[in-house]
Amino acid sequence: MTHVRLSDDELPTELQDALERHDLRDAQLLLGQRPPHVIADELARMNAVDAVVAFRLLEKDEAIKVFEELEPVDQQAILMGLRDTAFRELVEELDPDDRVRMLHEAPAKVVQRVLAGLSAHERQMTAALLGYPEGSVGRYMTPEVVAVDRHLTVRQALDHVRAKGADAETIYTLPVVDAGRRLIGVVELRELVLSPSGRDVLDLVAADAPRVYASDPAEDAARLMRETNTLDLPVVDSEERLVGLLTIDDAVEVIEEADTEDVVRQSGSAPWSGHYMAATVWQLARHRVVWLLLLLLAATLTVAVTDAFEKTLEQVTQLALFIPLLIGTGGNIGAQAATAAVRALALGEVRGSDLPVIIWRECRVGLVLGTMLATLGMALGTAFVGAQIALVVGVALVIICGWAATVGGTMPLLAKRLHIDPAVVSAPMVTTLVDATGLVIYFLTARAVLGM
Amino acid sequence: MTHVRLSDDELPTELQDALERHDLRDAQLLLGQRPPHVIADELARMNAVDAVVAFRLLEKDEAIKVFEELEPVDQQAILMGLRDTAFRELVEELDPDDRVRMLHEAPAKVVQRVLAGLSAHERQMTAALLGYPEGSVGRYMTPEVVAVDRHLTVRQALDHVRAKGADAETIYTLPVVDAGRRLIGVVELRELVLSPSGRDVLDLVAADAPRVYASDPAEDAARLMRETNTLDLPVVDSEERLVGLLTIDDAVEVIEEADTEDVVRQSGSAPWSGHYMAATVWQLARHRVVWLLLLLLAATLTVAVTDAFEKTLEQVTQLALFIPLLIGTGGNIGAQAATAAVRALALGEVRGSDLPVIIWRECRVGLVLGTMLATLGMALGTAFVGAQIALVVGVALVIICGWAATVGGTMPLLAKRLHIDPAVVSAPMVTTLVDATGLVIYFLTARAVLGM
Repeated sequence: MTHVRLSDDELPTELQDALERHDLRDAQLLLGQRPPHVIADELARMNAVDAVVAFRLLEKDEAIKVFEELEPVDQQAILMGLRDTAFRELVEELDPDDRVRMLHEAPAKVVQRVLAGLSAHERQMTAALLGYPEGSVGRYMTPEVVAVDRHLTVRQALDHVRAKGADAETIYTLPVVDAGRRLIGVVELRELVLSPSGRDVLDLVAADAPRVYASDPAEDAARLMRETNTLDLPVVDSEERLVGLLTIDDAVEVIEEADTEDVVRQSGSAPWSGHYMAATVWQLARHRVVWLLLLLLAATLTVAVTDAFEKTLEQVTQLALFIPLLIGTGGNIGAQAATAAVRALALGEVRGSDLPVIIWRECRVGLVLGTMLATLGMALGTAFVGAQIALVVGVALVIICGWAATVGGTMPLLAKRLHIDPAVVSAPMVTTLVDATGLVIYFLTARAVLGM
Repeated sequence: MTHVRLSDDELPTELQDALERHDLRDAQLLLGQRPPHVIADELARMNAVDAVVAFRLLEKDEAIKVFEELEPVDQQAILMGLRDTAFRELVEELDPDDRVRMLHEAPAKVVQRVLAGLSAHERQMTAALLGYPEGSVGRYMTPEVVAVDRHLTVRQALDHVRAKGADAETIYTLPVVDAGRRLIGVVELRELVLSPSGRDVLDLVAADAPRVYASDPAEDAARLMRETNTLDLPVVDSEERLVGLLTIDDAVEVIEEADTEDVVRQSGSAPWSGHYMAATVWQLARHRVVWLLLLLLAATLTVAVTDAFEKTLEQVTQLALFIPLLIGTGGNIGAQAATAAVRALALGEVRGSDLPVIIWRECRVGLVLGTMLATLGMALGTAFVGAQIALVVGVALVIICGWAATVGGTMPLLAKRLHIDPAVVSAPMVTTLVDATGLVIYFLTARAVLGM
């Protein structure tokens, strides 16, 4: 048994060296000693050709385990590099839900080859899963479920599990159904094992176990599982008939993908499903450029504002000294408030209807922070340019902070109300918006305080 | 059986209204219809007094379920509002690992009252868990494990599970141990149920199942479980003796907490364990102010830089127009790169040793982005102030973008090498750093292009 050491389970760069030297024997030895998820990590970092070569070196049983650990994009790349028999074997071995995730966004060429390689039964299950909308529970659930008839006893149910369980992805959560396959509830294998064998299964059915529709968003279902500590969630169609199970390992995957997407969006990049190290410079640039261009356009506002106040600025050039500091601070406060709001929305702590509460509290938080920062800001200002401009900086800081926190905390909720993903309200977007208005506040304050 | 509707499972504000009207009957009716996690959400949003009142209205069985769904801070608040008998009953019912999480960071008053209320056996288990360092696997694992002796047959093992399973948190993952309680491996209940009853358990033990030490970081263990699709992870002490199991529901909790912490840190706030809606204005301000003050101090650099170039600025006041645009864009690019790097580190896609690769690729990404943005920037510049200053803006944009992406992508890895949490390299920190250097680049470019 391998002991996985958490601190250092990295496959040495020796593997890549061995491949470069075309020393396949050495590469095979290196691969043989590692657990599947470590090998998968390593393949994901390689270019496609090296990855296929390394993948072919794996033992057959090991290969399928490694393949299952790979992200869909990497799976597709490896599949396309395999010969026909190896291809068919690999695809047949996959669970239907893993197969669907791989086919999601795959080029038509891959989809065709995969579906053609399947047995009739496997093809049917995959196609059924593919019918559900992207991001829905249907895409992630497993259809290979052991359903238990409502009229069975514990002993009969256990016999049924033994007869049907080998092919199912899990046998720990057993949906209980009526003759029309309508879901009555679930019984846990734990209950069956610990209960007297003559008891009716119906007595053990959990009365308040949640269920979801196959068309529900997978992220909501996964977060529900987390909140309710549910191992597997039964999935039904619109007529309440059992169609599958969402298992916890897939739910964890869904949550992590959603978190990554939120984080990346929050920084003003387009979400991106691949491995960071495998992305090319062009791919990275393409995912980041759209928002940057939009934000640059929006930043024209700051040019226009400064332009409008050019006279003020010519009279007191020293005002320019504090522009970066003021808009920087406003941006920081806006980003803090926006991030807190987006995360609270994602975790379900905040709802659209909380908008007035949030406006009121973030405004006060901003003013409190602004007052603290103004004290420091005025001290700095006095040191550099004297008391009068320092006063301008201090007053402007208080107002800008109150405004920035309000905008940052509010915009994600507004987006939610407009049915836009709140994470799209990225920190850079809030920052840019606050920049322009912050300048207006600054120059108006200057005019008022300096009596211009 | 309740059907949980994902789109709208909010407990209406009617509950809060009922409590304000002191209509406890009505409140009780409203509570009775909701699943535990929805009630817990609602309690977390209330002030402490209302929450205790609402909690007391719950049926005894329901109360413990709701309590388990609450965050530790909310649990402590409710506990302190209960009378002695209710208190003792509630604490006894909790699983030892949940109890430890509640006691973590609790005031000494709460800790004492909780430990005093426990039976000797329960107190011993809780105290054992409390001995592990904060954030370690030991704090999250359950010690209530059904261990199977290596010499048993499948039938004997199942009998053992039936005899001991009722008190354990899970019976799906069964650690197999030798006479000295040293861990041999694990067998899944699934294997026991599906295998012939005469078979030796040792034949079914998974050869490559991972294990962790109780002192290992819980986040690493949880991410390992996610990568390997493991349901429960056996936990051993330094002598490889079994001490507990890390279950998947606790692992999901660990991952979500870590993600929230990263996100919040990334925006330059201190991490914060409570519910967003329950935080007071002062608490929110306190968590955000430290970084803001530090960043404001750092922003003095921008004042100093602008001050140093005041002559240049006085000669060509129009240069001031583009200060917000340039440093804003630099900040955005730096934040994108930093966020991508922090997330890739958290997911284990990038390691400290990748530093040279990352410097090289982020530098190129920045230059590519800078070139695209410069085209737009020069068009804008020409429209506002003419071709010469537009050229300054364009050239400065290319250099600033290359520099900002390099700094943003690199700093989290440097932090990791210095054993600092990479998420501490927040977007605002990168932005502030890039602001000052960006100004230097801008003014130097201006001098060179304008021949000053």
